[in-house]
Amino acid sequence: MDVAIIGASMTKFGQREAWIRELLAEAGEACIDGSPVDRQAIDHLYVSNMASGEFEGQTGVMNALAHDLGLLGAYAERVDQTSASGGAGVYEAWQSVASGASEMTLLVGGEKMTHRTTAESTDVIASITHPFEYKHGLTLPSFAGLTARHYLERFDAPRESLAEVAVKNHANGANNPKAQFQKEIDVETALESPIVADPLRLYDFCPVTDGSAALLFCPVEVAREYTDEFVRVAGVDGATDTHVVHERDDPTVMGAVVDSGEGAFEMAGCTPDEIDVAELHDMFTILEFLQMEALGFAEHGHAWERVRAGETAMDGDLPVNTSGGLKSKGHPLGASGVAQVVELYEQLVGEAGPRQVPADRGLACNVGGFGNCVTTTILEAAG
Amino acid sequence: MDVAIIGASMTKFGQREAWIRELLAEAGEACIDGSPVDRQAIDHLYVSNMASGEFEGQTGVMNALAHDLGLLGAYAERVDQTSASGGAGVYEAWQSVASGASEMTLLVGGEKMTHRTTAESTDVIASITHPFEYKHGLTLPSFAGLTARHYLERFDAPRESLAEVAVKNHANGANNPKAQFQKEIDVETALESPIVADPLRLYDFCPVTDGSAALLFCPVEVAREYTDEFVRVAGVDGATDTHVVHERDDPTVMGAVVDSGEGAFEMAGCTPDEIDVAELHDMFTILEFLQMEALGFAEHGHAWERVRAGETAMDGDLPVNTSGGLKSKGHPLGASGVAQVVELYEQLVGEAGPRQVPADRGLACNVGGFGNCVTTTILEAAG
Repeated sequence: MDVAIIGASMTKFGQREAWIRELLAEAGEACIDGSPVDRQAIDHLYVSNMASGEFEGQTGVMNALAHDLGLLGAYAERVDQTSASGGAGVYEAWQSVASGASEMTLLVGGEKMTHRTTAESTDVIASITHPFEYKHGLTLPSFAGLTARHYLERFDAPRESLAEVAVKNHANGANNPKAQFQKEIDVETALESPIVADPLRLYDFCPVTDGSAALLFCPVEVAREYTDEFVRVAGVDGATDTHVVHERDDPTVMGAVVDSGEGAFEMAGCTPDEIDVAELHDMFTILEFLQMEALGFAEHGHAWERVRAGETAMDGDLPVNTSGGLKSKGHPLGASGVAQVVELYEQLVGEAGPRQVPADRGLACNVGGFGNCVTTTILEAAG
Repeated sequence: MDVAIIGASMTKFGQREAWIRELLAEAGEACIDGSPVDRQAIDHLYVSNMASGEFEGQTGVMNALAHDLGLLGAYAERVDQTSASGGAGVYEAWQSVASGASEMTLLVGGEKMTHRTTAESTDVIASITHPFEYKHGLTLPSFAGLTARHYLERFDAPRESLAEVAVKNHANGANNPKAQFQKEIDVETALESPIVADPLRLYDFCPVTDGSAALLFCPVEVAREYTDEFVRVAGVDGATDTHVVHERDDPTVMGAVVDSGEGAFEMAGCTPDEIDVAELHDMFTILEFLQMEALGFAEHGHAWERVRAGETAMDGDLPVNTSGGLKSKGHPLGASGVAQVVELYEQLVGEAGPRQVPADRGLACNVGGFGNCVTTTILEAAG
């Protein structure tokens, strides 16, 4: 069954004076209000959220949200795939409609994090890594630093090329009123920022963020009854890579991105050069290179050249992270994969405002852990 | 697409000297080993687990389990619906196969709880309730006590009738080597046990438990290629009730059980009197009455009479909780809904040993919160 997305919204990302229940309700409410659908029609509710229990001592957010949105009776479930919870939610929502279980599924992803210290958040997040690696100090930022050094040396890429990812995404985010940072930066600022995990510096990392995002899914034939303004889920697939990062053959190849990308392209019946706009998981700048290569948007070891050449800028052949990406828009874990698809939805229906690029087909890649769990989604303009 | 269950297993339930990763791997490994399926065929992995982060500081269990079971590449996701996480996992696994996303889905549910104090566990679990009710002392056991008193008085049911649920389920559990308690009790023991939430006493409550359970799902036509020994998922549906318990019209009517039961019966094309065996969510004895009534196994206010008459005993018309139920088998949150279906699988393929009853069709009802989230599943013998 062909599945449509008929509504999309996200809250302001940043440091928010609201708890997870309020953030989820804010995006969910806006999504329903902005769609042509009456809330009574919603029969499934998925909540993408990694750690409301660990961060806030709040469990059962799916049932609470069903209450807060007035969706009494709807099936409600929480989906966790760490940083890729949002992408997993997209896959889940697609499955719920494609299987015939639901005729109208609301997906809301969100996380409330900024009230915890970075050390506390890091402890929660680092527990996804293997204990053997963790006790040697290998948190996600450490892996990013090691991988970046390896990539730069092996592929003879200049250090500036990583900074250029940050500069591009901050420039895009400056046009996104929902982004945590609406601030352009230059290469010097990025290169002179404090070291976090050598060679990566502060501006190579996404911030800690509160926020949520929502999407409304239904069969295409149901969408047509409501409106001409919807997009179609052309392809979606998920995959995992090794739990132990050092067991991977090549640290510059994100295997689960390769696998989920191949699955999504096969389902969509298209190739990487037919993608007009992409949202990639730039939790660390180096990941934007690795995902471009794993998805076939660049040859192995050559993504940095495309970025340098401006081909992934707003006016390039393949604009990447028009939303500002995780780098500038922020990264509220469970929200990010949903917000990526919100950006694609806005691009494909022509509502991206100053960030609008010409696009009929978009791809989102959401990554959990250090490439541990990945979901790739391809959307097409429809209506 | 018709969905089959082609493998089932559960660990010993009880106080286990193993962490969540080990428990999940134990059930998952046994399920694969006991099935005719090679692990390379498994493309989706769902982990039903409420709170590994809160209980153990362990996140990312789905990716860790994919590693531990050697399922590299398989899509992996955690499903949370509090105490109903297992049932939600069954629904998810069904959707993943029915949508065509997966040809072989492994579901593993588990929880590790006994290393935490009852007060700590209660804090985690009670955070699913509404803050307004929680601060008035309304934890799940409190709701159970209030509801039990209301039921007994309104329907003129004797206090002994609740004790008889515990006696029956302990008798069944005595024949289940995987159960936490293999100990028969009598009505006097139950009635003289310490008060927990008046009128309910210790033996009206399930214990705190460690354990896990697993199931293997695939299309029926794929199952046939492997074996004649499988069961068919005839019906499955989920629903929510109000997050605020006191907003419900009648405290003795479990609305989400009614809704999900109706959905499952409609999908299965059968009626309550065509069910041969049922696993109900007897976290508190009173819930067995309420679910029997909400599912149409008894008139409102009359389930206690069926139990008293022995109609839900092993040799009755409708054996309920042949496994021992949560009461005797134990209740490792994320495992329970999966273990209910494991028991039905064993009954329907004739491998229930001393607990075997004549059965071609079984029903499982898994409840989260105080009826907040519910999934009902109906299985039929196939092959």
